[in-house]
Amino acid sequence: MDLINIHRGVMIEKIKIAVCQMKVVDNKEKNIENAVNMIKEAAINLSNIIILPEMFNCPYDNQKFLEYAEKRSNSKTLKYISRTARNYGVYIVAGSIPESYKNNIYNSSFTFNNHGQIVAVHRKLHLFDIEIPGSIIFKESDTLSAGDNLTVFDSEYGKIGVAICYDMRFPEIFRLMAVDGAELIVVPGAFNMKTGPDHWEVLIRSRAVDNQVFMVAASPARNEELSYVAYGNSMIVNPWGDVLARAGSHEEMIYADIELSELEKVRRELPLLKNRRTDIYDVIKK
Amino acid sequence: MDLINIHRGVMIEKIKIAVCQMKVVDNKEKNIENAVNMIKEAAINLSNIIILPEMFNCPYDNQKFLEYAEKRSNSKTLKYISRTARNYGVYIVAGSIPESYKNNIYNSSFTFNNHGQIVAVHRKLHLFDIEIPGSIIFKESDTLSAGDNLTVFDSEYGKIGVAICYDMRFPEIFRLMAVDGAELIVVPGAFNMKTGPDHWEVLIRSRAVDNQVFMVAASPARNEELSYVAYGNSMIVNPWGDVLARAGSHEEMIYADIELSELEKVRRELPLLKNRRTDIYDVIKK
Repeated sequence: MDLINIHRGVMIEKIKIAVCQMKVVDNKEKNIENAVNMIKEAAINLSNIIILPEMFNCPYDNQKFLEYAEKRSNSKTLKYISRTARNYGVYIVAGSIPESYKNNIYNSSFTFNNHGQIVAVHRKLHLFDIEIPGSIIFKESDTLSAGDNLTVFDSEYGKIGVAICYDMRFPEIFRLMAVDGAELIVVPGAFNMKTGPDHWEVLIRSRAVDNQVFMVAASPARNEELSYVAYGNSMIVNPWGDVLARAGSHEEMIYADIELSELEKVRRELPLLKNRRTDIYDVIKK
Repeated sequence: MDLINIHRGVMIEKIKIAVCQMKVVDNKEKNIENAVNMIKEAAINLSNIIILPEMFNCPYDNQKFLEYAEKRSNSKTLKYISRTARNYGVYIVAGSIPESYKNNIYNSSFTFNNHGQIVAVHRKLHLFDIEIPGSIIFKESDTLSAGDNLTVFDSEYGKIGVAICYDMRFPEIFRLMAVDGAELIVVPGAFNMKTGPDHWEVLIRSRAVDNQVFMVAASPARNEELSYVAYGNSMIVNPWGDVLARAGSHEEMIYADIELSELEKVRRELPLLKNRRTDIYDVIKK
């Protein structure tokens, strides 16, 4: 960690990002314990922002979403993550969990600041329905409801955006987050063994290149015992589209030291956001 | 060529695409002659749509744009390309040329049908200004003016969109072209030895993956004798993002047989355009 980081009140230049590519199993308590342990390891390694994968406490399975869903007000999962954020003084983008809210279940990502307070909630905007005969069939909309908001929030490190998995396939929301000031966009996501090899890297890198932002994509480790097998290959990418760190398929941590000021340099050299022809077209929020 | 192609009036299923990755030199007549010869070769190989690179008749150089510019009404370049399209009964997306119009010069792409008639003109919408000290500095806006329109047109093969080079960096226009019905998007482009290796493939593939369209990107061959050295690596990509054909750095032809009906299959399996949350955001034309 850069020394500048320990001086409160000054601009924080260098940030250590950690992604916990954890192996999710069919046991909520074990998943929580594993998440907490991996966060502790990242914190001991002086990480500032620690990221968990999509559905880190629950197998990616419609039936399990129903079984594992928790209300924010009495979520055991969130209680443990909050406590760990506070105890170690780290930001945690807590991947996502099945969240029970009113009569619906959402695929929700909670972000905790270094005091353990929730500072952002992103509910997956686009539900994943895919049907490739003989390869992969999954209909998230069978059990889940979709959120209605883009998520960009301020932190002491800079402006952070959050999207979840299938959200990554829609370039509009990344453009809107970047225009809204997001410098780092975090995407917990569980691509599968068809879409992962074919699309995961190209999507992560193109969102970074188009919007000249840092991208962090956090996948669960590959677990062949579950009905839906995640691709792994969590990745941290800089605003030029270079891959700074990339996981394999197994459970592991990846790290990268980043400087958000790199955005300014890239945008000065190749002024993409400025060169948009917003007199001809635009992406709008409704 | 598939037999179905020679029956006029029936739906044309299979299309042979050819990209002429020609080596542009500092001699307009030689460039025209080379373009015509490569088109003839592609036509003899039973290609239906033949694509030339960006600035195929002129070195990519601000001073040369001024020298080489032609008016549409008395363009030697366009006359030869039109005649070749008619003589061989092929569609030609004629890369681009410096076009003199009123008091401005545009980077313009003319498309000819198999009767040699101009059916579309795209004037580059986004002018390329880059300044990476020690690597690449180029300001297209020093000499060129920007177009003001997106370009999608009907052909007997399906709906075709055209964008030029730096236009490819703006995902908005690809989304708009796809929503407007484009099935095949052609991008004559001359990325350089910095942006080429770093961004060319990721941009081409992500535009295909996001919009589930065929993408064809046509670069000049690498010519180290010119002030601006193009990357080459012309590419034909399917709506799943697979690279069907890819050139190296030298002058060469690449071909692919495509079926536009593949779009429907990909969009049925993974309904991206339908799954956009246009209640939350949208890309609009102004």
